[in-house]
Amino acid sequence: MDIKKKQKIVKKWFVELQNIICKSIEQLEKEYGSKKKFKSNKWKHGNFRIIEGEVFEKGGVAFSNVIGKFPKNFAKGIPGTKNNNKFWSSGVSVVLHPKNPHVPAMHFNTRFICTKKSWFGGGMDLTPCISDNNQKKNYHKELKKLCDSHNKKYYIKYKKWCDKYFYLPHRKEARGIGGIFFDYKMENWKKDFLLVKDVGITFIYLLKKITQKKMFLKWSKKEKDIQLLKRGRYVEFNLLYDRGTKFGLNSGGNPKAILMSMPPNAKWK
Amino acid sequence: MDIKKKQKIVKKWFVELQNIICKSIEQLEKEYGSKKKFKSNKWKHGNFRIIEGEVFEKGGVAFSNVIGKFPKNFAKGIPGTKNNNKFWSSGVSVVLHPKNPHVPAMHFNTRFICTKKSWFGGGMDLTPCISDNNQKKNYHKELKKLCDSHNKKYYIKYKKWCDKYFYLPHRKEARGIGGIFFDYKMENWKKDFLLVKDVGITFIYLLKKITQKKMFLKWSKKEKDIQLLKRGRYVEFNLLYDRGTKFGLNSGGNPKAILMSMPPNAKWK
Repeated sequence: MDIKKKQKIVKKWFVELQNIICKSIEQLEKEYGSKKKFKSNKWKHGNFRIIEGEVFEKGGVAFSNVIGKFPKNFAKGIPGTKNNNKFWSSGVSVVLHPKNPHVPAMHFNTRFICTKKSWFGGGMDLTPCISDNNQKKNYHKELKKLCDSHNKKYYIKYKKWCDKYFYLPHRKEARGIGGIFFDYKMENWKKDFLLVKDVGITFIYLLKKITQKKMFLKWSKKEKDIQLLKRGRYVEFNLLYDRGTKFGLNSGGNPKAILMSMPPNAKWK
Repeated sequence: MDIKKKQKIVKKWFVELQNIICKSIEQLEKEYGSKKKFKSNKWKHGNFRIIEGEVFEKGGVAFSNVIGKFPKNFAKGIPGTKNNNKFWSSGVSVVLHPKNPHVPAMHFNTRFICTKKSWFGGGMDLTPCISDNNQKKNYHKELKKLCDSHNKKYYIKYKKWCDKYFYLPHRKEARGIGGIFFDYKMENWKKDFLLVKDVGITFIYLLKKITQKKMFLKWSKKEKDIQLLKRGRYVEFNLLYDRGTKFGLNSGGNPKAILMSMPPNAKWK
């Protein structure tokens, strides 16, 4: 299949995925008794949707499709950019900051990037404020199941990659309890795309399960404060280390779309 | 005078300056009817003091004295590091986040850095949440007076430098209303040191004047919200662009001392 065809198919999936994720989140709001809906913000490279809900104090679900050129410095180490910095990319990324400190912050992303080569990347990870070993165990069990159904080697590899990526060296702290993360996936387009679709669907399943289990729990002021401090770490990670954020801001992207991932509020001690 | 002697004299001034600044801030708290005092945090490279007050929701005043080596990448472009990355530095830096949105956030820093060469750097700038043209005019008038008493060319130069430095390109926004900023000042040690002392003293004068004028003003929820959003920009600047923050975190500095500049809380829309 030629690359144009692949891009068309992948893009169509990402558009659809954004819709399903938004619907699922609005459904969770409804179950909670809230009528809050997403607001859509179109711009030249896509469409980012923000909800300010009762369950999700702030949630962002972005679809993007960018055709551009990597800045020279950034292109170093990116496959297929030796003689040409041009790229095509499309993806969906999600960051959810729930109001209830018992519900963890959730992050998900899948993307397809084309230079002279083309590959998939993505993953998801969880950032609880209040530790819950059962939740951690179940989350990783589901991710292992997902990975194992594609390749028995994936889970360990992608879990490690996630732990390494979502780490704050200056704090010597992990951002959360990890998840899976992969990049430069270009073994077999059909199989890789199946994995990417499965990651998206599993995210929706986990998002619902985790939220439904905890969204009605009561919380104390102290627990809310723990959440706000944890959100401060989230901000530090995104602005200091996140590659996507750095790339987007340095290449003149839309700051509102890029910084959609910021929490609604945060605290520092 | 040999460099050791200069370092001793400068360091003594910075220790003293930290004390005077903290006393002035505690005095402002007292005038407001608060008994809040600074807490001192000693670590191997200095002493940072934090106040969580009634006037200053969070204020940090740090004295530091670091002897170390610049990382290779960072050393590029720094004078006197051609054959040797070692440095000696000492300085005082201040970031004040007032509770009242009518009182602007204030930033000040002066430092002395020695490699094979040695120079002073520093400045101050103001970040109001609610614009006040009179305040802006007066602030710059005082800074011009200060600069002019040393050299008629300084004010324009240092004002421009400040505007250029405290700018958020991704937002296309200035951080605040500017001030003065200078670096690599190594014309004449005695005169440069006089300027640095004068910048410190003027900061204390302005800090008092600006705070006293506004600390008793009433504010609305809307004004508090504007402040929290503005603090979000402050966070973005510090984590994305500030050279000191980047250098400190990358070189294994104490994150609590370096991130002392973070606001107590912030919001993103």
